[in-house]
Amino acid sequence: MTYKHNFNPTLSDEDLFNEIVEEKKHIGYYNLVNQDTTAFKEYALSVKQKNIVVIGIGGSTLGTYAIYKFLKHSKMLTKQLYFLETTDPIDIKSKVEQIDLSDTLFVVISKSGTTIETVSIFKYIYSLVTLDKNNTLIITENDSKLNAYAKIHDIKTFEIPKDVGGRFSVFSAVGLVPLAIVGIDIDALIKGTKEIHDAFFRSDNDREIYTRLLKKARFLTEYKNSFNINVVFSYSSRLEGFNKWYIQLWGESLGKIDINSTRQGLTPIGIIGPIDQHSFLQLIVEGKRDKSVTVIKVDDFYSDLKIPATKLEGLEELDYINNVEFSSLINTQADSTIECIHNLGDIPCDVITIDGVSEKAIASLMYEYELLTSLCGKFMYINAYDQPGVESGKIILKEKLKNI
Amino acid sequence: MTYKHNFNPTLSDEDLFNEIVEEKKHIGYYNLVNQDTTAFKEYALSVKQKNIVVIGIGGSTLGTYAIYKFLKHSKMLTKQLYFLETTDPIDIKSKVEQIDLSDTLFVVISKSGTTIETVSIFKYIYSLVTLDKNNTLIITENDSKLNAYAKIHDIKTFEIPKDVGGRFSVFSAVGLVPLAIVGIDIDALIKGTKEIHDAFFRSDNDREIYTRLLKKARFLTEYKNSFNINVVFSYSSRLEGFNKWYIQLWGESLGKIDINSTRQGLTPIGIIGPIDQHSFLQLIVEGKRDKSVTVIKVDDFYSDLKIPATKLEGLEELDYINNVEFSSLINTQADSTIECIHNLGDIPCDVITIDGVSEKAIASLMYEYELLTSLCGKFMYINAYDQPGVESGKIILKEKLKNI
Repeated sequence: MTYKHNFNPTLSDEDLFNEIVEEKKHIGYYNLVNQDTTAFKEYALSVKQKNIVVIGIGGSTLGTYAIYKFLKHSKMLTKQLYFLETTDPIDIKSKVEQIDLSDTLFVVISKSGTTIETVSIFKYIYSLVTLDKNNTLIITENDSKLNAYAKIHDIKTFEIPKDVGGRFSVFSAVGLVPLAIVGIDIDALIKGTKEIHDAFFRSDNDREIYTRLLKKARFLTEYKNSFNINVVFSYSSRLEGFNKWYIQLWGESLGKIDINSTRQGLTPIGIIGPIDQHSFLQLIVEGKRDKSVTVIKVDDFYSDLKIPATKLEGLEELDYINNVEFSSLINTQADSTIECIHNLGDIPCDVITIDGVSEKAIASLMYEYELLTSLCGKFMYINAYDQPGVESGKIILKEKLKNI
Repeated sequence: MTYKHNFNPTLSDEDLFNEIVEEKKHIGYYNLVNQDTTAFKEYALSVKQKNIVVIGIGGSTLGTYAIYKFLKHSKMLTKQLYFLETTDPIDIKSKVEQIDLSDTLFVVISKSGTTIETVSIFKYIYSLVTLDKNNTLIITENDSKLNAYAKIHDIKTFEIPKDVGGRFSVFSAVGLVPLAIVGIDIDALIKGTKEIHDAFFRSDNDREIYTRLLKKARFLTEYKNSFNINVVFSYSSRLEGFNKWYIQLWGESLGKIDINSTRQGLTPIGIIGPIDQHSFLQLIVEGKRDKSVTVIKVDDFYSDLKIPATKLEGLEELDYINNVEFSSLINTQADSTIECIHNLGDIPCDVITIDGVSEKAIASLMYEYELLTSLCGKFMYINAYDQPGVESGKIILKEKLKNI
């Protein structure tokens, strides 16, 4: 008798950890925590322009936007950051009209160097203002055609390492350079990622983060057929960019065909509290039990903005909100949603509370999500770092455009 | 022998239509297509302030934002529209700082009149600038406590009809008054809704819209367990507000417990092309077959913005995009995604092409989605117009706040 199988065994904690340690040798994002940022910071200090326009899409912009959106109103930033991402003509025109192009640094970011949206917008901007070494920076792979262009025109470049995928690239030059230019403390970002990295990979007994992430990844993948939707419910409008970044990271990394040709994937949804209490919460509470929920809270908004005790005749029944700080209100709204979900008893729910509106806090959160995504990928027996499913659309597009 | 059952029979087309006609007698949104907008337009003309700030959340803002976002860069609007929705202190502060409050009309919108976010922000704004009949407008139900407040202070009000639910209220005073003030043609909006209404409810042989919506609603509800996620893939950044409005409409209307105590619900996701080709498309293509996809295209962007034939040395392989209009590029990107999905053969997909960036087009689209939501509600044997699931969270919140 012989026996063969193609089962995907459930990985033990130890096996999984060993696989991640092995993967770390050739998947570059893990190790960005130890990079030297001196060149990024020196370049940032040399930038004279007031406006920074990133031309890029997907992994070239989402992470940068997430961090910028989170911090921009809490830091004294000296420059404005804009993103030109889409081919929507009205969007391009309305954005360009509000920017003084003569006082702008254009940061063209494309890993492959031939992203169609990015090159299209690059060409359009070039028709409005000369793009040369004085107002252009290019961030791409070392051997891309965009890099060749930069070399010909003596345009400054930073490299996207080959082994760092687009959606895992926020803590490479892709995110760090534009963020450093506008005045974000990129060393504090790296510190935030390194804390999580070191805590995850330590081998002594204090393995809280490792245990927590492993448990979560195991749960989400083992119950992926019951709970095929993962809702991130972020209680701060500052996390809107993070939600979008998470959707790309989760969707594009895990939506894959596994080694047995079985379709895998967990569907990410990002919502914002309290706004989406008035939009999506009803569905979570009374709808089908197909969702897990992760609530993200911000412990300290560094704000003492308060609801004043204004007397509104007829509305006295709401006077219990008088003198409550808005930060306290929004966090109490989060707690009420958590308690409501907890009381239902049959919705998987976890709560992440980040320390505050700071570089370190957002970077730690994002690095933790990158690790979680890698762990889920391992449990699903998929490659979390490619995106073969979008290639056929690109080929169709090229054919259609050639025939216009 | 006796026989009893609690089956929910699949409704015949005729039964369903009769139920909708019956429902139309007491669900008000259907009939907003015939309202007289004279009072809204007269009031709009009388507004002198340059800035309009809507204070509201959920159904009080999402529809207005959807239409404003869609049209604002294509119309010559004379006033700026802002929304104060959330209790996030950084969001409130940063928005308020950019507005000249002394040249602002505040439009306070709350159906119940006691929405906690709305009253909190109202109180806060009142501490910055006196709110009285000269700079305040209130839109609420006639017997709400907010209405009582307005009466005491002689503040102008418009009514939200009792039989029009918040998320179905965009074509009532809730949406029409702020939109009229900033210069949107609200009669063209109403015309857009009326065309769909009349086409749907006509009884002769030309029932294209009725047949189409019925078929779609029947499919989505019959296959709700296989395809529990409905993705709206809108190919224009102008439709970002529409996507958010759709998510509330769909999620909050259909996420319900049916007459047999069974959980119903279809999960709405809104994504934007081409941006989310770089984020979510991989999951659609290779992930689990749990999604239907509706692609929305804009036929005419009224833009001739073109990709110039800029020569980029090294990037000549992309010269096939030279001289292509951006509107043509984005629509070709949509067509490529549609073809890619079609080629896969096992993803339910439909395509809506709206005429252009106009009042009539967006209003028709939104009214059609309202009808579709009502039809799905009927097929699911639920009440699409209430939201009982969010009440318990509100009670918990009140208790917690009283104990702060």
